[in-house]
Amino acid sequence: MTNRIDLKQDEMPDYWYNILPDLPEPLPQPMDTTGKAIQVLKSVFPAKVLEHEFSTEQMIRIPDDIRELYFQVGRPTPIIRAKRFESYFNAPIEIYMKMEGYTFAGSHKINSALAQAYYSKIEGVDLVTTETGAGQWGIAVAMASSLNNLNSKIFMAGASYYQKTYRVTLMKMLGGDVNPSPSALTNIGKELMKDEKNKNGSLGIAISEAVEYALEHNGRYNVGSVVNADILYKTIAGQEARKQLEINGIEPNYIIGVVGGGSNYSGLAFPFYRDYKDAKYIAAGSYEVPKMTKGEYKYDYPDTGKILPQVKMYSIGSDFIPPPIYAGGLRYHGVAPSLSLLMKHGVVEPRDYDQDTVFKYAELYTRLEGYVPAPETAHALPIISEIAKAAKEEGKRKVILMSFSGHGLLDLGSYSSMYS
Amino acid sequence: MTNRIDLKQDEMPDYWYNILPDLPEPLPQPMDTTGKAIQVLKSVFPAKVLEHEFSTEQMIRIPDDIRELYFQVGRPTPIIRAKRFESYFNAPIEIYMKMEGYTFAGSHKINSALAQAYYSKIEGVDLVTTETGAGQWGIAVAMASSLNNLNSKIFMAGASYYQKTYRVTLMKMLGGDVNPSPSALTNIGKELMKDEKNKNGSLGIAISEAVEYALEHNGRYNVGSVVNADILYKTIAGQEARKQLEINGIEPNYIIGVVGGGSNYSGLAFPFYRDYKDAKYIAAGSYEVPKMTKGEYKYDYPDTGKILPQVKMYSIGSDFIPPPIYAGGLRYHGVAPSLSLLMKHGVVEPRDYDQDTVFKYAELYTRLEGYVPAPETAHALPIISEIAKAAKEEGKRKVILMSFSGHGLLDLGSYSSMYS
Repeated sequence: MTNRIDLKQDEMPDYWYNILPDLPEPLPQPMDTTGKAIQVLKSVFPAKVLEHEFSTEQMIRIPDDIRELYFQVGRPTPIIRAKRFESYFNAPIEIYMKMEGYTFAGSHKINSALAQAYYSKIEGVDLVTTETGAGQWGIAVAMASSLNNLNSKIFMAGASYYQKTYRVTLMKMLGGDVNPSPSALTNIGKELMKDEKNKNGSLGIAISEAVEYALEHNGRYNVGSVVNADILYKTIAGQEARKQLEINGIEPNYIIGVVGGGSNYSGLAFPFYRDYKDAKYIAAGSYEVPKMTKGEYKYDYPDTGKILPQVKMYSIGSDFIPPPIYAGGLRYHGVAPSLSLLMKHGVVEPRDYDQDTVFKYAELYTRLEGYVPAPETAHALPIISEIAKAAKEEGKRKVILMSFSGHGLLDLGSYSSMYS
Repeated sequence: MTNRIDLKQDEMPDYWYNILPDLPEPLPQPMDTTGKAIQVLKSVFPAKVLEHEFSTEQMIRIPDDIRELYFQVGRPTPIIRAKRFESYFNAPIEIYMKMEGYTFAGSHKINSALAQAYYSKIEGVDLVTTETGAGQWGIAVAMASSLNNLNSKIFMAGASYYQKTYRVTLMKMLGGDVNPSPSALTNIGKELMKDEKNKNGSLGIAISEAVEYALEHNGRYNVGSVVNADILYKTIAGQEARKQLEINGIEPNYIIGVVGGGSNYSGLAFPFYRDYKDAKYIAAGSYEVPKMTKGEYKYDYPDTGKILPQVKMYSIGSDFIPPPIYAGGLRYHGVAPSLSLLMKHGVVEPRDYDQDTVFKYAELYTRLEGYVPAPETAHALPIISEIAKAAKEEGKRKVILMSFSGHGLLDLGSYSSMYS
């Protein structure tokens, strides 16, 4: 019996799904107390990305060139039924994994990076800039830039640059120009380098450098989470998944995934939201960075550097200093505004799980299914255990769709902590 | 325009292809000077694997249970047309990559590991043993054992064990019991540990330990290259590729790939051999371990420990000490007997390429296509350059099928040498 639901390239959906018009109430607007932040964004964001950020069109057509780029990096991705993992729970459940780890970049992030690089290119520039923390987003941007024949300047928090050598090497092989931040490439970097305490860098510093570098070198700045446009581009995953399940007559009772900034979970779940009102939506974060369960719904800065406009979202504070957990993608302090709004309305249920629990599930999944999830991705696995328990008690079959947001092959250094 | 040729799970071929009856002359038999070697093999090989080793049936049916296991690890794999890499050469060529790197194990090795673990399991044992050098085969065996609900005892050359920590961690997450060799788990290991000079271990020592451990603990020993049965199981890749190309009316003019022990290239090329006599067959090895171009066709030991029967093959000598090249899978001293015979008859043309050249091609491919090849895999890329040059001169379109034997995500540590 087969365990894979393929979708041919010519069956890939033609549209991204924009949730803004379908939200239960209008999305609170960004707040720009200084009046400068939005001006900066207009100078460094590609115009089309800015347009999409505020669009109220429900379906937005994917340009043919971006469809080609999606094909190039491994789209459509398959859905895999994790039968051996199902058996472990001895409960009436079916688990369908939307395998974003199958993309060449190894994660869902490439879905947005390709679109943003493309919308940068059509403005006639030859440079894209961005920041990266643990490196996943940087890999996606390096890849997207090369596939669009653009240069990329990537600012990576200094501490990560010297620690995540595999990811740095991959960015370089992909043609990315990756630099430890703070750097001497920008004025803000030069200024900050004078103080020894900044030498490890931070995501906030790296964002500031990437924005300045784009401004000074006629580049475009590409952003890897939280904003509406980024989520829009990532809905290609959910659009595909809907089609794959519907073709096969499979109706999910649960749609689950993990939340870093929110674009991964939203990218899978949003395309189901309008027509699958009976499904349960559950999203998990990290117990060590508990924005999902302990965040407050309020206006806050999306970036630690406070150069972007404030947005209304669940947040544990832009000043929150995350502990050094291994799921780098989950260290972010807030939840994307659109997803936050659905949490506020009780549509999406939040969870947070601790690293030890999550690593045990990652190990279990790897042994049973043969495929290693990213630590971030694995934070959704304990949700399955909860559902299995409930399904067993209720005696009713439950169908689960999960975003398998990335593979963990470049996270084996982190996982090795289990054996030392 | 699409660039991927999928094959559905229910379209996967039902048979492995055995080249033995189709060879231009009978394959020279193994030579067992002591009379002990074959006896040892009979005790530790699964009976079905031994039977396949000497079978003269041309097509051997794949058991349903193994088909299921192939599905579990990502089979069938797609063929990707590398259009951006084609464009680089500015020549009338088409490049089709059979993507064995897509399997969960990241390489073609899982195709054989699953079959051998299965044939071990049906004998009622609960243990599989093997050796591994750089770790790719160990990963495949750890995965195959867990998917067959078997334990695995993996002996890894000590120096690699402490160096290739990502691969060791992955084996452990997969449920493999991996040990640095020499170890105190076997008599031969204990004996060798007494001498400081053995502390780094070797593939030869690891084989000896794996065989002894299987003998002493009622396990079965699984072998990852060279032997006929191993190649037979790996022909699933070529069987699929033939079907994928034929469905789409594509006829390859060149079939290329790399040779470690020979099973990768043979797994892709052998199923074409009988019916595609006009195709050119070219296989590459490493210039630093030049068995392909400087090997001698003679009886030699397949293992450095000299416990296996001698076979007739191209070899640079079982005592050859390979330099520390990064393509660990190409450090082997010989070429599988069946492939050697085709080389002797001029059917398969040999090449050897040096590491610097190969790494440059790996970087180029990664930047253009977005997917990083294993260093081993990348040794076939310079062949494409040769073909492109000839095609341009001749002014005729040439279609190339290449075995993309594995991804390079766990080799980024090696690739980083390009940037230091």
